[in-house]
Amino acid sequence: VGPIGVFDSGMGGLTVLRALNRRLPREDLVYFGDTARVPYGTKGARTVQAFAWQDAAFLVTQHVKMIVVACNTASAFALDYLRDQFAVPILGVIDPGVETALARTRGGTVGVIGTSGTIRSGRYQDGLARRIPRERILACECPLLVPLVEEGMLEHPVTDMVIAEYLGPMKQARVDTLILGCTHYPVLKAAIGRFMGPDVALVDSADALAEAAAAILAGEKPAAPTAEAVPIPEQPGKLTFFLSDIPWKFAEVGERFLGRPIQNVTTVDLDEFERAEGLTINGKDGA
Amino acid sequence: VGPIGVFDSGMGGLTVLRALNRRLPREDLVYFGDTARVPYGTKGARTVQAFAWQDAAFLVTQHVKMIVVACNTASAFALDYLRDQFAVPILGVIDPGVETALARTRGGTVGVIGTSGTIRSGRYQDGLARRIPRERILACECPLLVPLVEEGMLEHPVTDMVIAEYLGPMKQARVDTLILGCTHYPVLKAAIGRFMGPDVALVDSADALAEAAAAILAGEKPAAPTAEAVPIPEQPGKLTFFLSDIPWKFAEVGERFLGRPIQNVTTVDLDEFERAEGLTINGKDGA
Repeated sequence: VGPIGVFDSGMGGLTVLRALNRRLPREDLVYFGDTARVPYGTKGARTVQAFAWQDAAFLVTQHVKMIVVACNTASAFALDYLRDQFAVPILGVIDPGVETALARTRGGTVGVIGTSGTIRSGRYQDGLARRIPRERILACECPLLVPLVEEGMLEHPVTDMVIAEYLGPMKQARVDTLILGCTHYPVLKAAIGRFMGPDVALVDSADALAEAAAAILAGEKPAAPTAEAVPIPEQPGKLTFFLSDIPWKFAEVGERFLGRPIQNVTTVDLDEFERAEGLTINGKDGA
Repeated sequence: VGPIGVFDSGMGGLTVLRALNRRLPREDLVYFGDTARVPYGTKGARTVQAFAWQDAAFLVTQHVKMIVVACNTASAFALDYLRDQFAVPILGVIDPGVETALARTRGGTVGVIGTSGTIRSGRYQDGLARRIPRERILACECPLLVPLVEEGMLEHPVTDMVIAEYLGPMKQARVDTLILGCTHYPVLKAAIGRFMGPDVALVDSADALAEAAAAILAGEKPAAPTAEAVPIPEQPGKLTFFLSDIPWKFAEVGERFLGRPIQNVTTVDLDEFERAEGLTINGKDGA
């Protein structure tokens, strides 16, 4: 019972929401995007943890049965912390991305790109290193890709030039699998694929994460249908959106990530909300 | 008595601090950079107002005698609001920029570039329109310039390409004066000047703002030295820095804007601070 909660630093996590909605079309989904404080990827670990706590605490007040951390940077710095603090199952995007990459590599080198925070946290690299040697793992911070995507420059010579600069060393090292370790990057798949070539597998975590979420939910139900099983209702799940700010390019950026116009949006001031609900960071009372 | 307070969405306002320190070398200066929530330029007007209120309230608790809003976006959306809320004199960067541009134009077209928020607020355009016709005013949002500066790509073909795309129409319209309406842009003066050509005056507000601040402070003292005048102490003013986050590239970005390494930095969590001090937005008790 209850919806699945998804949070992200901004609107990029709508790519993850979309994958969840495709895999689990009957589940209600509640999205929170911290657009007032986006981006997280340039900011320090403790700041990201404090923000992620507030984001998760907000979703808990929406009676979610599970929290998906769609933001790679928040997954990198705050996943363990959130699991300590809240009782509902919490899924991040890093482990599914690592598993998918390990399944797809043909024994070559695996690359990962992300924000400064995600790459410097070393979480993707450590995850890969449990199964492949360190010398076969390459990582690169790509801070300009987020603003280029937000500006809609998906097919633009500037973007191609920036991609060539960031990914040149990966191409030279003959990476055979590249993890797109930021929710913004999947919309650049065409441009990145053009540069890396058709033989390089581009991995994003969204589908693998949706699969993991489905497995957890399935585990809550009986393994086989019982005689008295009530038919599952046919109606599609409801999507609800909360944002901490309505940015200037809200409509176009939303559609870019969600694949269709974003509707039913409510703005929420997290600070005001926290005061009103009596929530306190580290208070354990959010769960 | 008391220091001059300066706030900005992040570290770009250090260019303004630097100009104040040059013009008023004996004044103590307190800087607050809201690095946890940077940037402001993509965010909605009400969000920027709420953030600016917290920034100013923090400075007031540091006993500042004047507040300089170094951020163009905050100056555009929050200056009148802050003046209503706080008793100390409050200066923004837009009026000084407009005045400087009007003094420098040779009767041609004046251009202004800035963040989405600054340009969409229309504040620069309205200020210029009080003295020159609307058809001689051109404005352009340049959202990619901030991340390019933060990445240190001051001399880079990607930056030249982005500048050419944004400023092409300004050059074609034969703008004779261009306002750099964002604290990040002055460090791109060389690249912008190269594209626009040597005859185009590039205006940033920092020096004009420092002049305005000096005039206000001079107004508080007797116009001429009195017989009993105490000699002004020779020691240089103290610079103190507060940031709401220490971002990953803190040291290099700080030096880029300040022109020397940034020292004596304290981090402050504005939400925690607000709770501890019992500050409330719209409460008028910050002044």
